[in-house]
Order: sequence, then C-alpha cells, then structure tokens
Amino acid sequence: MLSIGKNAVRELLGTDAEIFKLYVLKGAHDLDKFVDGAKAKGARIEFCDKRALDKLAGEIRHQGVIAETADFAYCSLEDILAKAKAKGENAFILLLDGIEDPHNLGSILRVAECAGVHGVVIPSRRSATVNETVIRISAGAANLVPVAKVGNINDAIRKLKDEFVTVYCADMGGESVYDAHFTGDTAIVIGSEGFGVKELTSKLCDKVIALPQRGKVNSLNASVACGVICYEIVRQRSAK
Amino acid sequence: MLSIGKNAVRELLGTDAEIFKLYVLKGAHDLDKFVDGAKAKGARIEFCDKRALDKLAGEIRHQGVIAETADFAYCSLEDILAKAKAKGENAFILLLDGIEDPHNLGSILRVAECAGVHGVVIPSRRSATVNETVIRISAGAANLVPVAKVGNINDAIRKLKDEFVTVYCADMGGESVYDAHFTGDTAIVIGSEGFGVKELTSKLCDKVIALPQRGKVNSLNASVACGVICYEIVRQRSAK
Repeated sequence: MLSIGKNAVRELLGTDAEIFKLYVLKGAHDLDKFVDGAKAKGARIEFCDKRALDKLAGEIRHQGVIAETADFAYCSLEDILAKAKAKGENAFILLLDGIEDPHNLGSILRVAECAGVHGVVIPSRRSATVNETVIRISAGAANLVPVAKVGNINDAIRKLKDEFVTVYCADMGGESVYDAHFTGDTAIVIGSEGFGVKELTSKLCDKVIALPQRGKVNSLNASVACGVICYEIVRQRSAK
Repeated sequence: MLSIGKNAVRELLGTDAEIFKLYVLKGAHDLDKFVDGAKAKGARIEFCDKRALDKLAGEIRHQGVIAETADFAYCSLEDILAKAKAKGENAFILLLDGIEDPHNLGSILRVAECAGVHGVVIPSRRSATVNETVIRISAGAANLVPVAKVGNINDAIRKLKDEFVTVYCADMGGESVYDAHFTGDTAIVIGSEGFGVKELTSKLCDKVIALPQRGKVNSLNASVACGVICYEIVRQRSAK
C-alpha cells in the first residue's frame, strides 16, 4: 500500500510500520528529512522524476514523496478492547455502519486519533476500507488508530455488550448527547450520511443519542457529528 | 449566482430568496417538486438536456437541477448583532481568519447553521467567498446563515469588543475550551488550517481557547474543530 504526500509519510515515519520503499522527487532538498527518516527504518530509497510520482499517486497530491508499506494491517475487536485495558482506560470505541465515502472515513479516523479513541470498527462489506485516499485525508491518523474489519457490525455490538460496554447509536430522534453519561466503557455507532444507522442495528444498541439541531438543515456531516460526540466524551472524562 | 444540486436547491426553496430561473433535466419526473416549488416562487423554468446542465454546473454534481438567483447577499456585522438581539439571545458569532478552501467554508457554514450561530464574518481578502461550491458543500446552509464580508477582521473584533462581546481565539496552546464560559455574548475566531490565527489578531482577542488533543496528529480539521467548539457553546447554553 502507498502513503502519499508529506503529512501521510510524516505520520508513517512516527509509527512502527515497516516501510519497504520511499519514492522521492529527484533534486528536492526540502525532502531530505523524509529520506533520512525512511533510511533509518531500513527502507530502500528511489529518486524519481515528477512524472513517475504522478503516475504512482494517481489523483492524490504527492508533494514529492510516497512511501510503500505492507497492506493496511487491520486488528480485531479483541485487540481494541485489550488496548483500552492496557492503557487502564474505559473503552472508547467507534463502530461505523456504512460509511462508504473514503473522505468521511479519513476524517473520522483523524477525529478518532485526536480524541484518543481506542479503535474503530468497520464492516467488511458496504464500507470504505483503509486505502491511500483515506490515509491522506486522515493526515496519517489511519496509521495510528487501530481499525478492525468485522463480518457483521451487529455481531460486534453483541460482543461489546457481552463485555459490558454500553453501545450508543448516534441517530436523529435520540435523547440529547448531553444527557448521556460516557464515563464507563463506551462504544458509539455512527451511521452513513445519507441513511443513518440501520433499524436492526439501532435496536441492538443500549440507547440512541442525538445532537441538538438549532437550524433548518437536517444534520451535520458524519465526521463533524462524530467529532462533536467524541469530544463530549473527552469533556466528560476529563471533567474534574 | 447558481445553486447546484438537490440539497442546495431544496434549501434555497425554503428561504425568502428570489429565484430567477430553474434549470431542470428534461423528462426527470422525480424533480417535479423542485419545479413546483420554483414556480410558486415565480421562477421561470427551463427544461434542458444533460449536456447543458453539465456545462452550467462545471465540476459540481447537479443531479438534474440548478437554480439561478441574485449574487450572494452579504450582510453587515451590525445586521448579525441585530439578529441576536431580535431573537433575544446572547450573540453567537464566528469570525474566519483566512479560510481559503471553499470546502472548509462550506462545512463551517453547515456547522454554523446547525448550531444556531447568528452570523459568520469573513474578510474581503485572502478568504474563500460564498460561491456555488460553498453553497453545495454547506448543503444549502449558506442560504440560511447571514455572512458579513468585512475589510478587516481586526476592526471587526474591536467593534465586537466595543459592544461587550467576548472574543475568543481558537488556537493551539490556549486554555481548554471546557474551562471557558460561553453563556454571555460570544464570538469565536477560527484560523486557517495551515497557519492558525494571525498573531496580531490573536492578541486582540480576550482569550485563546483550544481543544484537548489526545493523539499525535497535530489537530482536527478546521470545520470539525469549529463544530466541536460551536457545540460546546450549544451545550453550555442549553444546560439546565
């Protein structure tokens, strides 16, 4: 898989991920720190002309630097729960129900990383997966947040409830997010922008929560709504 | 100016704005409600083929419907203050310092509309202005939120302070947004994604506020950060 552009490669260099190869624009000295960083991780360096980089990057802006790594390594739901436990924190998990737009997935991963989410769960079908676009839009956060790909979101919800995680569904018509208490083990189901959370999935959740809407436009976009909810959790957990 | 695509036209139909002309895809019966709505507002209807609509819309997805209105009508800072007063609410104003990406401006206007912001202030130079792309990304919110274009953001801040509005600057290194009190007249300065708020502008503000960052990626994107801050204001103002 390719990490394309300065932000994505910079974040990648800060992780444990192995870099097979770094493609760098020939003669671009402002990119020296990328070359040094990749070399330190044992990557092969290939200096290319702009045309070769353009071809590799497709429609993505490469800014002269592209890193090649193994395909994105998904984790399991158990890994995410174990991560929370290892940090001694109450679980903070996002489940995405049908986010098909890579831009939305990338933005949500960026939110998740900033808010200290332990992991994000996506279904294997009818969902964007972590690709080059997602990594770039996430500003590299995709390399830092564990992502689990599961066969079925509903099974994941059942498993979390078995582990005593409270699962909230973010959807229209729920109780105000400001009346909910997120200090215990918490998972939030975020639906697709067009269709919300599926009815069966919503019914499986412990509670439906919503953001107050003051205006006439139906709703916030999925990643902004996700940001607001995640930061309400951050606020409640950091309240003195 | 053109409003392009179903969402943008739907929102436009819900406002008082005059529609000069509605361009509709010939033979598309799912668009009848747009035709009826536009007729009721006295618009001329022109049925076109896909090629003509593609040409009008440029790179924007038109979904078979485009409305032509007068150019976007900016308001003044005074209008925004008057709107808050007329609603009997404490002022809730956003000032954008160098948001040059139309996508970010559109997303911020969508956030502003959902959160009940009274108005958004943009500078006349080095800023995206309200165009077709902004209206589409805002899901039509741009037609519902008053936007003031001012010669100088710093003068606007001074004027707001003269009116006893507390002006906060959202930037790295400020005190936690959760320690601030937004129940009085409030304005928030949001900086550009790359460069934050200009130093002189920041110094003019009453206080610098920031969102806690739990991760390694530097910051949320501008519209998500704006969403989180606006909803913290909504939360504080709706707290019992």
